[in-house]
Amino acid sequence: MDKNILITGGAGFIGSHLTDSLLMEGYNVTVIDNLSLGRLTNLLNAQNNQRFKFIKGDILDKELLFNIFNEGNFDTVFHMAANSDIAKSHVNPDVDFNNTLTTTYNVLLAMKEYNVKNIVFASTSAIYGDTGVSVSEDFGPLFPISHYGASKLASEAYISSFCENYGFKAWITRFPNVVGERATHGAIYDFIKKLKKNPNELEVLGNGTQIKPYLYVKDLVEAILLIWKSTNEKINYFNLGVETRTTVKEIAEMVIDEMGLNAVIKYTGGNRGWVGDVPTFSYSLDKIHALGWNPKVTSNEAVRKSIRYILDKDLCIVAK
Amino acid sequence: MDKNILITGGAGFIGSHLTDSLLMEGYNVTVIDNLSLGRLTNLLNAQNNQRFKFIKGDILDKELLFNIFNEGNFDTVFHMAANSDIAKSHVNPDVDFNNTLTTTYNVLLAMKEYNVKNIVFASTSAIYGDTGVSVSEDFGPLFPISHYGASKLASEAYISSFCENYGFKAWITRFPNVVGERATHGAIYDFIKKLKKNPNELEVLGNGTQIKPYLYVKDLVEAILLIWKSTNEKINYFNLGVETRTTVKEIAEMVIDEMGLNAVIKYTGGNRGWVGDVPTFSYSLDKIHALGWNPKVTSNEAVRKSIRYILDKDLCIVAK
Repeated sequence: MDKNILITGGAGFIGSHLTDSLLMEGYNVTVIDNLSLGRLTNLLNAQNNQRFKFIKGDILDKELLFNIFNEGNFDTVFHMAANSDIAKSHVNPDVDFNNTLTTTYNVLLAMKEYNVKNIVFASTSAIYGDTGVSVSEDFGPLFPISHYGASKLASEAYISSFCENYGFKAWITRFPNVVGERATHGAIYDFIKKLKKNPNELEVLGNGTQIKPYLYVKDLVEAILLIWKSTNEKINYFNLGVETRTTVKEIAEMVIDEMGLNAVIKYTGGNRGWVGDVPTFSYSLDKIHALGWNPKVTSNEAVRKSIRYILDKDLCIVAK
Repeated sequence: MDKNILITGGAGFIGSHLTDSLLMEGYNVTVIDNLSLGRLTNLLNAQNNQRFKFIKGDILDKELLFNIFNEGNFDTVFHMAANSDIAKSHVNPDVDFNNTLTTTYNVLLAMKEYNVKNIVFASTSAIYGDTGVSVSEDFGPLFPISHYGASKLASEAYISSFCENYGFKAWITRFPNVVGERATHGAIYDFIKKLKKNPNELEVLGNGTQIKPYLYVKDLVEAILLIWKSTNEKINYFNLGVETRTTVKEIAEMVIDEMGLNAVIKYTGGNRGWVGDVPTFSYSLDKIHALGWNPKVTSNEAVRKSIRYILDKDLCIVAK
C-alpha cells in the first residue's frame, strides 16, 4: 500500500473530500493549498487526524513545492489544485495558464526531481470542447473552447510526456460538473445570491435549456479512488459522470423551491451562459461502468443536495 | 489579400522558406527571430526586398513582442518559432515548455491585445504520440511521448480556446519530419558529423529500422500556403506529409554514399533512437490530398537533397 500521499488543492471542494476519504482508509495525507478557493473549514475532520498535515502555500512557488517534496517522501500525488472558475479567464487567460497549467507542470517537475512516480490528476470534460455528440475517452480532435479546458488538456499532454520520459504512472480522471457539500461557486451559488438580493425575480443567463450531468462529489471521489486502485497501465484515463442530466431551468426552479420563494425566472436568451460554456454536454461512461462503478446519486438529487448544503450553512454570505 | 504578415522564427529552417515564398507573392513580411536556431544567412534573398523587415528578438520577451504588434498592423501571424530539437528537453523539460509552448501563448496574448485575428501554426505529428497505427487528423486519445509533442498539443489547445473566446481563425498544420535546404539538426547532421570524425565507422542509435516520412521543405511550405488560402473554418487542421518513408538505415547509407566513403554501420540496438522518439510513424494524408496537394519530392529524394546541401555548404562546421 502506498502510504504517503500529497494532495494539491486539498482544502478545496473536491480535494477536501479526497483528503477525508484517504485519511479514513489509513493513508498519511499532506495537503498543500493556497486557500484562494479552498477553505480551512473543509478540513475540520482532517485536522483531528495525526496522519494529516496541512501546508498553506502556492504550488506556483517552486521553491516551496520542492521543499515539500524533499521532506515528504511521497508515493502518490493527487493533483487537484487548479482554477475552477471557468468563466473567469475569458478576460484574463493568465488565470488558467498559471493556476491550471503551470501548477501541473511544477508538480511534474517536483516529481521528476524527487523521484515520485504516481500522479492522479483531476482533468475535465472541457478538454473535448463543444462536440455536439456523446464522447468516449478516445474522442478526437480535441479543440477545447475555454482556457480552462485548454489548460487541462495541456496538463494531460505534459503528464503523458513525463510518463514516457521518466517512468511515471498516471490516473487521469475527467470530471463533468461536480456538485455537493463544499462547492465554492457555480450556477447554484449565483442563483441563491441573486434571489437573496431580489426574492421576486431570478435572471438566468441563456435560455435555460443548457443541460449537463451534475455528479455528486462523494460519488466522484469514490470513482477516483477505485480507478487509482484497480488500473495499472502507464496512463489510465476515464470519463467520470452520471448518466442523468439537469437543465439550468431545473436548477433555477429547485433553488426557488428550496428557498420557499415564488420568484419569476427571466431568461437572457441564447443557448450559452457565457463564452467558453458548453451548452449541452454528455459523454460515454462505458469505461468506468466496466470497472463496476455507478454513481449512487442522480444529477437532480446531487443539485438539490448542493442547494440544501449552501442554504443550511448560509455559505453565500460566508463565501463573498 | 492580407498584406502585413508576421513570421515568428522566420530565420529558421522552415520559417525562412515561408518568408521567401510570402515575399515572392507580394506580402509585406516582418520576421522576428532570436537566432538561436535560425540564421541570418537563411534570409539573404529576403534582405534585398523592400517589403521585408527583420527584428532580432525573443518572443519570450513579452514587452518586445507587444511593441512589435503595436507597430506592425498585422493581418496574419505565421507562428513558426519553437524549439525544434525534440531530444533536447528530456534532460530539461523547460526547453520546450518555454520555447515551444510559452512562445505560442505569448503570441496569442499579443494577438488578443492588438486585435490580430489570424494565426497559421506549425504543429506536429508528435502530438499523436506512439500510436502504432496510421492516424487521421481526428485521432484520439492524444498522449504525446515527447515534451515537444506535449508543448505543441498544449499550443493547439490554447489556439483553440483563443479562437472561441476572441473570434480568431487558425490554420493548424501538423508536420512530419521535414528535411531540405537550411535544416539545422537531425539524423543527417549527426551522421555527417560522426563520419567527419571517423570516416571508417558510423554508430547509429537504435537498430536502423525506425521508418518515417521525410517531407521536403519546399513541398511543405507550398502546402501551408495552400491551406491558409483555401480553407476558412474557425479551426482548419491538416496533417502534412509524404506517403513514402525512409528508414534510418537508408539515411545512413545515403550519407555514406554522398560522402564517397566505405564506412561500416554499427547499430546500438533497440527500436528507438532516443526517449520520446516515435520509431515507426505514418499518418493519413487524405484531407490534404483532397485539397488538391501532393508533394513533388519523395521521402528518399528529400533526404538526399538535404545531405547534398549540407555537404555542399559544409554546414556541419558552420553549425557548431
